[in-house]
Amino acid sequence: MSTNVLRTADGWWVVRGDRAVPVETKAVTTAELLADRDAVREAAASGGPGTPVADLVALSPVTTPCRVVAQMVNYRSHARDSGFKGDIPPAFFRKASGSVSGPSEVVVRPSRVKFLDYEIELGLVMGAPLPVGTVVEERDLPSYVAGLVITNDVSAREVQLTKTQFYESKSYPTFTPTGPYLSLLEPEDFAHLLDLRLKLSVNGELRQDRTLADMIVRPAQALTLLARFQTLDAGDLLLTGTPGGTALKAPPKAVEKIGALLPPAVKWKAFFKSQAKNPRYLNPGDVITATIATPDGRICLGEQRTPVAAAN
Amino acid sequence: MSTNVLRTADGWWVVRGDRAVPVETKAVTTAELLADRDAVREAAASGGPGTPVADLVALSPVTTPCRVVAQMVNYRSHARDSGFKGDIPPAFFRKASGSVSGPSEVVVRPSRVKFLDYEIELGLVMGAPLPVGTVVEERDLPSYVAGLVITNDVSAREVQLTKTQFYESKSYPTFTPTGPYLSLLEPEDFAHLLDLRLKLSVNGELRQDRTLADMIVRPAQALTLLARFQTLDAGDLLLTGTPGGTALKAPPKAVEKIGALLPPAVKWKAFFKSQAKNPRYLNPGDVITATIATPDGRICLGEQRTPVAAAN
Repeated sequence: MSTNVLRTADGWWVVRGDRAVPVETKAVTTAELLADRDAVREAAASGGPGTPVADLVALSPVTTPCRVVAQMVNYRSHARDSGFKGDIPPAFFRKASGSVSGPSEVVVRPSRVKFLDYEIELGLVMGAPLPVGTVVEERDLPSYVAGLVITNDVSAREVQLTKTQFYESKSYPTFTPTGPYLSLLEPEDFAHLLDLRLKLSVNGELRQDRTLADMIVRPAQALTLLARFQTLDAGDLLLTGTPGGTALKAPPKAVEKIGALLPPAVKWKAFFKSQAKNPRYLNPGDVITATIATPDGRICLGEQRTPVAAAN
Repeated sequence: MSTNVLRTADGWWVVRGDRAVPVETKAVTTAELLADRDAVREAAASGGPGTPVADLVALSPVTTPCRVVAQMVNYRSHARDSGFKGDIPPAFFRKASGSVSGPSEVVVRPSRVKFLDYEIELGLVMGAPLPVGTVVEERDLPSYVAGLVITNDVSAREVQLTKTQFYESKSYPTFTPTGPYLSLLEPEDFAHLLDLRLKLSVNGELRQDRTLADMIVRPAQALTLLARFQTLDAGDLLLTGTPGGTALKAPPKAVEKIGALLPPAVKWKAFFKSQAKNPRYLNPGDVITATIATPDGRICLGEQRTPVAAAN
């Protein structure tokens, strides 16, 4: 059975139903908390009455700086949305960890950005070093992954598509809302990963709703591919891709092929002119809610609720 | 006048001509050394005889982990090589800092990689935090940039082009040879940046040879653009792009436009079939040498000499 942990300005807490019990630990970073699992177990087993979770202001349970790596196009439904056909080479990109924000913090739309989009993603929080060259089998996952978090890979689409490299478009401050819960898994919980259902709504309208069964490169294989070239450490975060339903949809194939013949500046100007009529992008005042859980509640990462605001 | 520092397994040294004097410091990381500039000054001023530089094995003077950020297409000559016309939107990407290696270490070609390429780049080593929102004017550069290093942004071209995101292709271990010298600049040295000349040879054949005058987005503007979305700290590294002369050349424009109409897998298969005849890619046994200096030697970052080897 998984154990949900949350972090506030006062420290770490174990969640039990609608109440939370403080963890007696000196851990400041996520990696330090993961090294002090005994303290988490003690809090989970303690008889204290705890504090109503509703009275706590949760911060991101993943502390920064840490490595934040993300998988590109990793759900079949999102691949269709994005106009991909045939095999998609698995690819990774980085997000600046300065983009990580709390599960109820405002998502700030930078002043130059018009096409702000959401991407709910399951985040894997590493529990141990992953050296270069590691091959991770399904059965090895519990040795490397300590737990799971909800993340939103917020994206400035006109920055992403015109610059081709995703780094800037996904790295502005508040572009990675994370939490509320870090769900620490027991080895037997990993058998239930594919039952996890990701749901994201904007102003109560459901936009994304898929289970991990729609995923293309699953966590063990993703870590194996990542370890071909880079190491991860405890407390690092891997975002595993988003399902279909984002505001951005690829243009029809014929339009895209004609677009490929135009100079890039002309192509993008035409594309974003068409996108200006798309009402699904995020606007100041919108509220994004996101949940990830198994249907039986065995794993439940809580609810993220982030309003959108314009930069000052 | 700049001060050249190098790092060995024993610690930090100040270079004076062909001899090096140890720096009396407890600094382990580059950031710690930069915080102990007095110790560097003392070593520079000391009367000790020092040790022949030739007897020292230099490590990367940039310690890891740190942020390694790189500018995409940032020299006019490289933009032409890469088939760009018109304005190029300035873009950044990340390299895993696990890719940083020493200035005489072997560059290891991963077993799946055939099209291994070189990219000499001037590396800026940060000396102070760069908060999000900072506007860096030319005159402010000395407040943020502590010094300069030679870097080679080694790239696995078939990984880079097929995956579209550059992260993996440039992040394998040994894909960022760095050093030998961290050249610590005085404020008056910054006026001479555009005189810096980058030269890279393979087996003695000169492949890249340009000054910073060919650069598109210069350091102060690059830091301003980067600070729109992310923070940097002392000891972090910004790679500022490579001039023309890499092994990779874009296909002729007509071929590229036809290629844009093909499914990506077909397009890349055809492209790399044509590249197989290109003798400029790096092979095991090759030796890369790289220098960056002003003609008057006021700033001289030493010589990097890295052999290429196949992965075991």
